[in-house]
Amino acid sequence: MMTNLDLITLGRACIDLNSVEINRPMEETKTFSKYVGGSPINIAIGSSKLGLKVGFIGKIADDQHGRYISKYIKDVGINTQNVIVDHKKHKTGLTFTEIKSPTESNILMYRDETADLYLEPSDIDEEYIKSASSLLISGTALAQSPSREATIKAARLAIKNNLKLIFELDYRPYTWKSMEEVSEYYQLMAKMADVVIGTRDEYDVMENIQDGTQLDNQRTITELFKYNPSLILIKHGKDGSFAYTRDGKVYEGSIYKTKVLKSFGAGDSYASGFIFALHKDLPIETALKYGAAASSIVISKHSSSEAMPTEEQIKQVIADGEVRFDD
Amino acid sequence: MMTNLDLITLGRACIDLNSVEINRPMEETKTFSKYVGGSPINIAIGSSKLGLKVGFIGKIADDQHGRYISKYIKDVGINTQNVIVDHKKHKTGLTFTEIKSPTESNILMYRDETADLYLEPSDIDEEYIKSASSLLISGTALAQSPSREATIKAARLAIKNNLKLIFELDYRPYTWKSMEEVSEYYQLMAKMADVVIGTRDEYDVMENIQDGTQLDNQRTITELFKYNPSLILIKHGKDGSFAYTRDGKVYEGSIYKTKVLKSFGAGDSYASGFIFALHKDLPIETALKYGAAASSIVISKHSSSEAMPTEEQIKQVIADGEVRFDD
Amino acid sequence: MMTNLDLITLGRACIDLNSVEINRPMEETKTFSKYVGGSPINIAIGSSKLGLKVGFIGKIADDQHGRYISKYIKDVGINTQNVIVDHKKHKTGLTFTEIKSPTESNILMYRDETADLYLEPSDIDEEYIKSASSLLISGTALAQSPSREATIKAARLAIKNNLKLIFELDYRPYTWKSMEEVSEYYQLMAKMADVVIGTRDEYDVMENIQDGTQLDNQRTITELFKYNPSLILIKHGKDGSFAYTRDGKVYEGSIYKTKVLKSFGAGDSYASGFIFALHKDLPIETALKYGAAASSIVISKHSSSEAMPTEEQIKQVIADGEVRFDD
Amino acid sequence: MMTNLDLITLGRACIDLNSVEINRPMEETKTFSKYVGGSPINIAIGSSKLGLKVGFIGKIADDQHGRYISKYIKDVGINTQNVIVDHKKHKTGLTFTEIKSPTESNILMYRDETADLYLEPSDIDEEYIKSASSLLISGTALAQSPSREATIKAARLAIKNNLKLIFELDYRPYTWKSMEEVSEYYQLMAKMADVVIGTRDEYDVMENIQDGTQLDNQRTITELFKYNPSLILIKHGKDGSFAYTRDGKVYEGSIYKTKVLKSFGAGDSYASGFIFALHKDLPIETALKYGAAASSIVISKHSSSEAMPTEEQIKQVIADGEVRFDD
Repeated sequence: MMTNLDLITLGRACIDLNSVEINRPMEETKTFSKYVGGSPINIAIGSSKLGLKVGFIGKIADDQHGRYISKYIKDVGINTQNVIVDHKKHKTGLTFTEIKSPTESNILMYRDETADLYLEPSDIDEEYIKSASSLLISGTALAQSPSREATIKAARLAIKNNLKLIFELDYRPYTWKSMEEVSEYYQLMAKMADVVIGTRDEYDVMENIQDGTQLDNQRTITELFKYNPSLILIKHGKDGSFAYTRDGKVYEGSIYKTKVLKSFGAGDSYASGFIFALHKDLPIETALKYGAAASSIVISKHSSSEAMPTEEQIKQVIADGEVRFDD
Repeated sequence: MMTNLDLITLGRACIDLNSVEINRPMEETKTFSKYVGGSPINIAIGSSKLGLKVGFIGKIADDQHGRYISKYIKDVGINTQNVIVDHKKHKTGLTFTEIKSPTESNILMYRDETADLYLEPSDIDEEYIKSASSLLISGTALAQSPSREATIKAARLAIKNNLKLIFELDYRPYTWKSMEEVSEYYQLMAKMADVVIGTRDEYDVMENIQDGTQLDNQRTITELFKYNPSLILIKHGKDGSFAYTRDGKVYEGSIYKTKVLKSFGAGDSYASGFIFALHKDLPIETALKYGAAASSIVISKHSSSEAMPTEEQIKQVIADGEVRFDD
Repeated sequence: MMTNLDLITLGRACIDLNSVEINRPMEETKTFSKYVGGSPINIAIGSSKLGLKVGFIGKIADDQHGRYISKYIKDVGINTQNVIVDHKKHKTGLTFTEIKSPTESNILMYRDETADLYLEPSDIDEEYIKSASSLLISGTALAQSPSREATIKAARLAIKNNLKLIFELDYRPYTWKSMEEVSEYYQLMAKMADVVIGTRDEYDVMENIQDGTQLDNQRTITELFKYNPSLILIKHGKDGSFAYTRDGKVYEGSIYKTKVLKSFGAGDSYASGFIFALHKDLPIETALKYGAAASSIVISKHSSSEAMPTEEQIKQVIADGEVRFDD
Repeated sequence: MMTNLDLITLGRACIDLNSVEINRPMEETKTFSKYVGGSPINIAIGSSKLGLKVGFIGKIADDQHGRYISKYIKDVGINTQNVIVDHKKHKTGLTFTEIKSPTESNILMYRDETADLYLEPSDIDEEYIKSASSLLISGTALAQSPSREATIKAARLAIKNNLKLIFELDYRPYTWKSMEEVSEYYQLMAKMADVVIGTRDEYDVMENIQDGTQLDNQRTITELFKYNPSLILIKHGKDGSFAYTRDGKVYEGSIYKTKVLKSFGAGDSYASGFIFALHKDLPIETALKYGAAASSIVISKHSSSEAMPTEEQIKQVIADGEVRFDD
């Protein structure tokens, strides 16, 4: 029998290889630590750690990295009934990270022929989707066929079965063929979704804006509220975030002081905290705080997945107004 | 300045090579006659001949066949402002036809690396689309990237600019990677359209039905009317057609007696007649007659494009209740 | 049991679609006649008509065109034991011809995803090759994998089994990725062959010459005679041909007066006549005459395959010193 | 001006990521150490460390890994005049190694869209090749176009300019499309080479043997000595090696006792020692000892490149009859 799940996330589950030696270019590092990574699996891990019942839909390579991922996510309590093992020799996606300084991090991604992009429409199980109350789609799952069509199918079934459809733009400039291609699929998915989450830069990609008129949240929400969305979250990095609702309300969220080790992982932890709070029916103002607090914790640590906080840690940051360090 | 157009059709403009020697397998034919062909360009030709102001959006090969098409469609009065010439050595699609008997025709299609499937999102001109009152999308234009994304963009711009969006399913089993892929994109487009046109078989493809429960028009219209469509035409070949409207009405159309030379071209001429009548605000009952009459004329002749009838010929068939032949 | 064959040719067997209306651009033609075409199958047809026992190695599409080819070549007496039918929906190659004037002909080729280029190494049967005394390789069979590797394998087995290996450069600028790629494979094959046949332009392609120093036959033969070849034929169009032998001899051949209808087909008929004469142990001077006579007959006719002459016709042209026409 | 080089190696320069935690499956490791890796670059490093003047021909990714490789090989003294930086976003090949036990090691390779396989014929500089006395080709460089054609061109130029051509079979079951494809290119290259080096398993791949008649060195040398090779080295792992010369002599080499940490790197170090000794005109018996000694040192250490021995270390092992460890 199917468990009832609070949330299913769909997309990639990959390997992060984080430079052990930090504050230097990758050309000078010698050692890498291995973690599970990738936006939708990170959000699954983060939400699960916060207490939601979470499932994951994705395709995983039939190799040592794939088996590592599979075991890790089972161990943290994620439901893996709709995790498919690829049998066509596709690879696990890799992200090498380089921490040059607290403000300058780079990534080097391996995204050619990765198993996650070979998720097929026939891999998507309507019964599994039906068992959940919300489905989160990662934009990167739309980057290539057949994952693109599998993702469109999952969204269609979510709508048919009355799940809340959450679209995390999660834009990565790999495997897409043109900016216009990104833009068309992002608009298509955003208009179908109930909740849309992304950075201002990602909304600009969705709108295929290249004319310097960025930062126009009003334009974005005017267009999207003509269609299905009821809640739109636009993140402006260290300048905080804005949540807009269909009834015309605007909520502004700020960030918490922390010691930044690296910037990546910020978005996934934000999404985990924000979505968790929404599921608990906390007010949007509180959801923005949960997102910001989770994010401020993760960017002070070395990994993006293992560093995901508990609700107690989040509450502590909110109470303290900053991340405290013992030193 | 832009002309005001009644209709733009989008998709392929190809070459038909019809066996001159008929009533035998192609293995025994020696000669082929050349015609312009392909569902959306045929509908453009047919509608234009009936009197509509028609434009075409498509990509055409930079070769002798492409130049033949380009000249032919200009000569019959189609607006070609948004016809793009490919400069990457893609080919003109070909359809060899084989007329074994009046009831058994086959086609042999060349659809690899054809110019029409290389239509790009950046080729789509919003100003051009804005100049028309309706846009007809051919399902085959969704069969492969980048034409797929160009088609999605055109549909998006049609909706944005309040054109009537017509989706002709026009299913051809080439270049698609799986039946599930067809099904997802067909559902996506059909739900966005105002008018959906196809044969019962094509709706089955859209619904990815392989369980023998075909012929269930009720299931089809129940699902589609949850979304945008207001008029759905389902054709059942020699058993006639059904038009369904959002307000619950059903219209049944029959066919006209004719001497069948070959079956292909039936759908394109039907669509031309039907759409022309809708544009002239004729009742749906009459539109069904116009479609059936146009179709009965074309299937008695050798080509699909040059055989497209005038309104007078259509009215004559309707008046006579059959196609008359001088013999 | 295997027949003993004089010659096996390897490569493509395609369809020519020749404009029925001549002396005009293809944009103004309406009708095409269908013939079997493609250099190696034309040479097989021509040699067979002259009296050699000929086999063909190639992959043929599982469609109406493929079946037409298969039947045609069997009917003219070619051994088809190693003709493979493709079952992966690849196409028959097509060549539309356009005869603008006796001196200006063009072709429009369809070479994407053609069955002949999917000949695989495992399709090559050593026993079949062993049954022949010579193997003719068409350069176009090297244009793409896996046909490229199948061709290399066939050449290897011909050498191993002491067949005479004939390399017809037959350069077609399709499906090759770069001129350097052509050059490397052409050099590789030419150095392995016993007999090399091509036009001066084709040898320039082999040598990747782009500096205006063409027409240097001495350079070509000096290089090739360091390796395996013992006979090199270089054709200079209407300026005649030169045959060079390893022992330092040079033979010059001229052409015969004719009424030129179109230029294509000249090379295949030349090769048929020349190779036939070599098989009959006629002197090289006579082989050059056989080639030139066959060529002068074919270019006065509409097709390239059906027009292939008999030995009597060739002897008549040689005796008359020109092609005679009844008019 | 060009330096005079003793040896140029051609092929891939990649990154090895060796599990820091050993004697366990990779699923249980957390940390990886980074090294330069790949057979031809390892042989370049090993030969250079032994004292040869060595150059490398290869294409390197324009990313952090590529820059690491480039700097590393310059620092160890390899001439990099013909090392090309890729500007089309191809990747650095990766090899994750897993040391389960001294006798069970596995690798997990990333070979999709790697820069080394995009070496183009036009990247090959005849002047550079001319500057060396020998060229070593890695079989893996033949695995895919355009690297395949670039490699064929380099071999052609080596022959033309009288370099000693060494073919290291170096078979890796990635990116090849079929075993027959491997077999054809391996035979082609082996027949052109002066020296052929490989394991018995690799010769079986070259001969496309799947019938259990392996271990037949006689068959291998009988065939190859019909063509160009004058020296053939066949390695049988822990059972030692055999060197065969054209004049019919056979030399048998054994291995040196060592503490095996992992098996990979054995072949590259063997080749380095063997080729170095040949260059120094040492007898073949000694060359076999140099190869075995170098190999016994490298398999006792963690990396394959940095562990390459000096000539003194090799002489010490030969003198001692085993690898000595201080413990």
